[in-house]
Amino acid sequence: MDYAKESLKKHYEWHGKIEIKTRAKADSKDALSLAYTPGVAQPCLEIQKDINKSYELTRRWNTVAVVTDGTAVLGLGDIGPEAGMPVMEGKCVLFKEFGDVDAIPLCVRSKDVDEIVNCISLLAGSFGGINLEDIAAPRCFEIERKLKEKTDIPIFHDDQHGTAVVVAAAIINALRVVKKELKDCTAVFSGAGAAGIAIAKLLIGQGIKNVIMCNSHGIICDGDEKLNPAQKEIAKITNKEHKTGSLADAFKGADIFIGVSAPGIVTEEMVASMAKDPIVLPMANPVPEILPDKAKAAGAAVVGTGRSDYPNQINNVLAFPGIFRGALDCRASEINEEMKIAAAKAIASLVSDEELSAEYILPKAFDERIGKTVAKAVYDAAVKSGVSRI
Amino acid sequence: MDYAKESLKKHYEWHGKIEIKTRAKADSKDALSLAYTPGVAQPCLEIQKDINKSYELTRRWNTVAVVTDGTAVLGLGDIGPEAGMPVMEGKCVLFKEFGDVDAIPLCVRSKDVDEIVNCISLLAGSFGGINLEDIAAPRCFEIERKLKEKTDIPIFHDDQHGTAVVVAAAIINALRVVKKELKDCTAVFSGAGAAGIAIAKLLIGQGIKNVIMCNSHGIICDGDEKLNPAQKEIAKITNKEHKTGSLADAFKGADIFIGVSAPGIVTEEMVASMAKDPIVLPMANPVPEILPDKAKAAGAAVVGTGRSDYPNQINNVLAFPGIFRGALDCRASEINEEMKIAAAKAIASLVSDEELSAEYILPKAFDERIGKTVAKAVYDAAVKSGVSRI
Repeated sequence: MDYAKESLKKHYEWHGKIEIKTRAKADSKDALSLAYTPGVAQPCLEIQKDINKSYELTRRWNTVAVVTDGTAVLGLGDIGPEAGMPVMEGKCVLFKEFGDVDAIPLCVRSKDVDEIVNCISLLAGSFGGINLEDIAAPRCFEIERKLKEKTDIPIFHDDQHGTAVVVAAAIINALRVVKKELKDCTAVFSGAGAAGIAIAKLLIGQGIKNVIMCNSHGIICDGDEKLNPAQKEIAKITNKEHKTGSLADAFKGADIFIGVSAPGIVTEEMVASMAKDPIVLPMANPVPEILPDKAKAAGAAVVGTGRSDYPNQINNVLAFPGIFRGALDCRASEINEEMKIAAAKAIASLVSDEELSAEYILPKAFDERIGKTVAKAVYDAAVKSGVSRI
Repeated sequence: MDYAKESLKKHYEWHGKIEIKTRAKADSKDALSLAYTPGVAQPCLEIQKDINKSYELTRRWNTVAVVTDGTAVLGLGDIGPEAGMPVMEGKCVLFKEFGDVDAIPLCVRSKDVDEIVNCISLLAGSFGGINLEDIAAPRCFEIERKLKEKTDIPIFHDDQHGTAVVVAAAIINALRVVKKELKDCTAVFSGAGAAGIAIAKLLIGQGIKNVIMCNSHGIICDGDEKLNPAQKEIAKITNKEHKTGSLADAFKGADIFIGVSAPGIVTEEMVASMAKDPIVLPMANPVPEILPDKAKAAGAAVVGTGRSDYPNQINNVLAFPGIFRGALDCRASEINEEMKIAAAKAIASLVSDEELSAEYILPKAFDERIGKTVAKAVYDAAVKSGVSRI
C-alpha cells in the first residue's frame, strides 16, 4: 500500500480522527435540567467543597491532554503546531482504542519553554494527566521538569519515557534469549537526545553495568562543556571509564546497541566488534541505523527496530495507553521510575518461555492483554511507591 | 423533581458528561499505518504547506473550546475552575446535541487577564472557535477584546452575546405582539454587567430609540467616574437625555424592561409607570426581578424570564449552537454584530403569525429547525459582511 497517498485520502474522508461523544442526554426539559441548569449547580458545589470530587463528577478522571509545540513531529522536524495535529489526533485514537483513555490534542503556538509551561499548567485542573509529544530536545526536558513542579498530575513525555519503557521490555526479553543479565552488560547508544537519555536512565535504574552514549561527534564524556544540560547530567552517570573516541570505538565489546539517531550510520564491522551474542536495536525511522539482515550477518543475536515490517518492533503503543490507564485509575500524582519499570516488566512478561525467540521478544501490538496487564502493574507500582491518591 | 439531588446522583453515574469518540480505526497494522505512522506524515506535510488545510485534515473545522476561569459560574459566583467543570461539560453536551459542534472544556487556573489570554491564544491553532463562559465582569470584556486581537478565530462570550441574541429575538417578536417598532421604543435596564451591556449594544445596533441602564446605584450616566470602563463606554451611547435618578425613575414611560440583575427588585408600581403595553423581561435566575403574574397584573403586555416553568423562556440554547455551527461552516474569522442580528432575526422568524401571542414569542428549545435556521442566517451574514473564509 502507498501509505502516504492512502492516508491523505483517508484524512480527507475522516475530516478529523476524533470527535466528542455525549454521555448525558439533552432531549427533554428534565434532561437539560439535570445535565445543565439548574441541577448542575449541585455537583459544582460538591467540587467547590472538595476539589478531588472533580475526579468523580466530571470526566477529569479519564482525560489526558496530548500536548505538542510541533517542533519534532515524527521524523519531519519543526513543522508547526497546526501541522502536528494529525499526529496528535492519531495519538488520541490510540489512547482511546488501546487504553480507553479520553485524550484531547492541544497544539501550542509557541517555542518558548515558559510560555508553554504556563499555558499547560493553567489547564491542569481540567485533566488527569498530560502527555507531551514531539517536542524537540533539549527544550522538552525543561518543559517536562517545570510542568512537574507546577502541577500535581502526571506529566509524561512519551517520546522519552514511552520509548524507554518499550526498549527496556525488549532488552529484558532479549537478555532471556541470549542468557545474559543486565548487571553484566554494557550498552552503547547512538543518539543522546530525548529518547536516548530516557532509555539510558531507565536501564541505569534497572542496574545495567555501563552505558556509553554517543552523539554525532562521538562518545560523550563528563566534563565536556559542549554538551547541553541534559547531556551533561547523563554524562555524570554513564561512561564510567571516561572513554573517548568515535561511535566505532564505543561499539567494541558492548553487549547492547541502542540506536535513536540517523539512518545507516552503523556498519557491520561495528556490530562484529561487539561482545558475543549482541543485542542490536537500531530504531531510527523509517530507515534504521543498520538493516536487520546486515546486523544479523555481522553476528547480532537479537535485532529490533521501529518498523512493523521486521520482527521485534519497538512500538510505543505497547506502553503509553496502559501506563496512563494505570496512572489515571489510581489518580497518580506522577509517573515515576518504579511505574515505568513495572510497565516494562509487564510488557516483557507477556512473552512466554515457549513463545520467546530471537524473532519474538515483544508481544504484538494487538494482543488484548497488554493494556490491562500494563495498567495493573503501573497501578500497583504507584500504590507501592506512594504516588496513588485513592 | 428535586433537581439538585437527582442531578448529583446522575453526575456520579455519568462519571463525566462527555468523552472522546474515535472516527478512525486502529484495529490492524494497516489501520495504524494510515491513522498514525507512517501514513500520517502526509497530511502533516500538507498542513505545513497550507495551514488552512488544518480545517480539512483535522477536526479543527468542527471544534470549539469552552473556556472559563470559574469566577462567575451560574449564580454561584467564583467557585474555581475545577468546580466550574460540570457546567462546562454540560455546555459541551448542548453544543453537540443542538449544533453538532465538538466542544472541549478548558477550565483555567488563573484570574489574571493576561495569563488567561496568553494561555488560550497559544491554543488557537487547535480550535475553530472559542466560547468564553461564566467569566466575571468586567474582566470578561478585556479577555474577549485581547483574545480577538491575538487570534484569527471567533471569540464569543456566550453570557454576553448569546443572551443578547435571544433577548433581541424575544423583543422582535414581543414588538410584533404589541404592534410597536424598535425605533420608537425606550428600554430600561436593571443590571449593567456583561449581559446587560451586550444586550444594550445589540439593541442600539438594531436602531432602538433610547436605552437607560441602571446599576445598583441607579441610572448610569456619561461622565460618572465611578463606572468601570465597559460601563463608561456604554454610558456614552445610552441615556441620551442624561437622566439621573433611581431605577423607579428610569422605568417611567419606558416601553421595554430588561432585567439582568437581582431577584425581586422591580415593583408593580414601576411596571405600572411604563408606557402602554410594556414588554417586561425580568431574567434574574432562579428568582426574577418581578414574578410574571405580578408584572401582568401591573399592566405588562408580554413577559419573559429565564425560567422554563413560565412562558417565554429566554434560553441561550436557542442561539449559541446555531451561531457556532454557522461560523464554523464558513470558517468565520469572527462573530460580528451582523451575524448576531441575523441569528436573532432567524430565531424570531420561527414563530409564525398564527403561533405568535403574548405567551409565545420564542420557539421551543427542542424545535429541530432552530439550529439549522440560525446556522444558515449566520453563515449568510458572515459571507455578506466579509468574515467568511471559504
